[in-house]
Amino acid sequence: MLLTNFKPDRTGKKPLYLQIADFIKEQIRLGLVTPGMRLPSVRDLSAALHLSRTTTETCYSRLTAEGYLVSKPQSGYFVADLQVPKQLPRELPSGSTRPAARYDFANNYVDGTAFPSIIWRRHIGQALKEKAALTGYGEPQGEPALREALADYSHRARGVVCAADQIVISAGVQSLFVILAALLQDRLFHTAPQIAWERPGFPQGEEIFRRQGWDIARFDTETLDTVQARLLYVSPSNPYKGRSLTPDLRRRLLRWTLERDGYILEDDYNGEFRYFTTPVSSLQGMGDGEHIVYLGSFSRLLFPSLRISYMVLPPGLLPDYRRIGRLYNQTSSTIEQLALASFIREGNLRRHVKKLRRLYRRKADLLQQALARHFGSRVQILAYESGLHMRISVDSPWDPQEAARRAEAAGVRVLPVPGGQDVPFSRSGNRFRTEILLSFAGISETDIAPAVARLATAWK
Amino acid sequence: MLLTNFKPDRTGKKPLYLQIADFIKEQIRLGLVTPGMRLPSVRDLSAALHLSRTTTETCYSRLTAEGYLVSKPQSGYFVADLQVPKQLPRELPSGSTRPAARYDFANNYVDGTAFPSIIWRRHIGQALKEKAALTGYGEPQGEPALREALADYSHRARGVVCAADQIVISAGVQSLFVILAALLQDRLFHTAPQIAWERPGFPQGEEIFRRQGWDIARFDTETLDTVQARLLYVSPSNPYKGRSLTPDLRRRLLRWTLERDGYILEDDYNGEFRYFTTPVSSLQGMGDGEHIVYLGSFSRLLFPSLRISYMVLPPGLLPDYRRIGRLYNQTSSTIEQLALASFIREGNLRRHVKKLRRLYRRKADLLQQALARHFGSRVQILAYESGLHMRISVDSPWDPQEAARRAEAAGVRVLPVPGGQDVPFSRSGNRFRTEILLSFAGISETDIAPAVARLATAWK
Repeated sequence: MLLTNFKPDRTGKKPLYLQIADFIKEQIRLGLVTPGMRLPSVRDLSAALHLSRTTTETCYSRLTAEGYLVSKPQSGYFVADLQVPKQLPRELPSGSTRPAARYDFANNYVDGTAFPSIIWRRHIGQALKEKAALTGYGEPQGEPALREALADYSHRARGVVCAADQIVISAGVQSLFVILAALLQDRLFHTAPQIAWERPGFPQGEEIFRRQGWDIARFDTETLDTVQARLLYVSPSNPYKGRSLTPDLRRRLLRWTLERDGYILEDDYNGEFRYFTTPVSSLQGMGDGEHIVYLGSFSRLLFPSLRISYMVLPPGLLPDYRRIGRLYNQTSSTIEQLALASFIREGNLRRHVKKLRRLYRRKADLLQQALARHFGSRVQILAYESGLHMRISVDSPWDPQEAARRAEAAGVRVLPVPGGQDVPFSRSGNRFRTEILLSFAGISETDIAPAVARLATAWK
Repeated sequence: MLLTNFKPDRTGKKPLYLQIADFIKEQIRLGLVTPGMRLPSVRDLSAALHLSRTTTETCYSRLTAEGYLVSKPQSGYFVADLQVPKQLPRELPSGSTRPAARYDFANNYVDGTAFPSIIWRRHIGQALKEKAALTGYGEPQGEPALREALADYSHRARGVVCAADQIVISAGVQSLFVILAALLQDRLFHTAPQIAWERPGFPQGEEIFRRQGWDIARFDTETLDTVQARLLYVSPSNPYKGRSLTPDLRRRLLRWTLERDGYILEDDYNGEFRYFTTPVSSLQGMGDGEHIVYLGSFSRLLFPSLRISYMVLPPGLLPDYRRIGRLYNQTSSTIEQLALASFIREGNLRRHVKKLRRLYRRKADLLQQALARHFGSRVQILAYESGLHMRISVDSPWDPQEAARRAEAAGVRVLPVPGGQDVPFSRSGNRFRTEILLSFAGISETDIAPAVARLATAWK
């Protein structure tokens, strides 16, 4: 061991004995000192490196406590046989590094220009003063102040009928599904739980149920009556659909819950955004209060990096939740929960949603105009009455994947609408009706027209 | 329907047509109007309530879109048959409402007096300025800035050897387990995955693995060699143990990973706290780098309401993580991740941990002195060399549960150490060696002596 290679750092940030210990560990890790080797005596090492004997002794006893050295009475310290191959630096497999496109119609971002940062910072500052709330783990169900604010907000904005006690808060809808999959399995099934997922599905959500042993079936409006499962997932504002449930389907869904004594997970993602009418209110508020679990989120209302979602449990599920809920720690930051509570209480959320609705309406109009100008009748707008996406169909010789590749080569990223059985695209002669989804939330107003111009070139 | 009961709110916060729509929905919900009933014509309702016809028409068409009404040409609007029982307000089953004790040795809190709120607020404020980071969903793996800071911090403070690319950030250790259970099942097993959990276990952690189909076994130091599973969970600073792994056990664990090609989950909860020596470094840094998943958390280092935990994956697991990781959305707030990154970079975490270590050391001393004064030789301190808990054994006629009940009646909450096979308590004659855990993190320095005095009275 070349202990003479050791260079002490005397700035005092790290005690000397730790510096030597780390140096010796590194030598072991690199295989430069080998099991069974005897280390210099405390006296010799101290003399060689001009250290006090206490420093050397502390270093050796720490390495012994950690298992790197073994102390043998009368004969000194030896390198333990860890039987561990030496750790060499290695190349790590790297993550995907897809370069950013010049124009992005494929992202999940929100428009940051609208976000009231200064107001939000004030609410965060207030929350940071509530020491008592910060030093504990917080309520597993979520901060009471936020649950009160959400019961009120979801009623006003989405027609949800509930008490604060029915609300469970979590960091994202997946964490809510972890709890729901457990809760509903105990409630509905003993073995072989099954959930019927509305087409086209939601991979991140299904992953949680599948990993917890659920079988995933699919359904759509036409196949509702043949569903065998006692649990349905619907997402009325899913971007791939882009339109809300018809009045008839709403009534059929409610009847289904009663006839089967089944449950519906109503994921109200983007439910606040409708441009031509005020948003249709939630199914939850229309039901008997016992068969619909309502799920809300703030990803699109404030910003996606704020990880706060919530669900409204029917009163009949609360005893089960009380039993297992304490096994699930709260995942959402207490400070952000408290900040959101006062942000909502003071009416900031209502005002912000209003502003966003105007902004997104304006963008949707710009996008529609640009498409008409560059494509004329070659593009058909299939849906954009809700949400932050526009689904279009382009008359082209390519399937959606290929059309997306050509767009990306021209600097514009778009989302191909998955073909196959979920959303078929039709072919007539040598031309396809190519379905594409354009998300306009994360693109600026001034970028919309030039981006569509590039699409027109790419899809000429 | 007594539409004359309708009282419009003319403050302008809510459009009039929505007010009427909500009023009608409420009547339907309460069963005051019944399916099939015909509503007043647009003309009649407008006249009766002094509304414009547009207002009434908008109200009716909204209720039709939502499915509450059905419009029949030439004959008007009728209440739809929802076949839903009316929703009456009902009493909710309430959560547990155990009153607070005067002195609490049983909580999971941290000492808030030490927390540098002003510095933290500054870092939050800086993070809020990074608009680009806030408007997206953030990296599923965690913000790169924080992963860089953690790779550096975990190396300096805990001897962890890793690159930032190996780190995955999440809101709490449970969310990490959701990913790990999926990742390791794919890696190690096709069916019947099994994990051996170090006694006395960790209910919230086991819940996640169990719900994802894992079988949970138990082991301790003595039974390590008989473990059948290829995955072990160890928590070297578990409060119920209160002592770190012996050098011999550390070497045996490392050998076990190599002999079985098995994995260890090393949960380093509280690993930073040792009072008599500097903390023993992580197992991870001692291994070959491929068999130990290191788990760290900031619940005790900063405050529990900050939901940031992380894990270090071996390079060999990264390809699997790249495959399934994108199915798991990030749960931790981006703002708090960015704030923590700069907080660590500027050395604030290192300084804060130093301060906490002094504070908790002082509290441990106060507690030890008070116990000696009031109980003398009746109390034996079993362990407090690490962590924020002291495990004691009291000479008493009660089992731990009964001793805890008596303490609580005297205004002091303590944690009985579970008896049975995990941690036996012995009985000699009519006296027990009653084992109790005292958590001193969340109790103030000045409260320690009076709380112990009350315990002495309760356990006389």
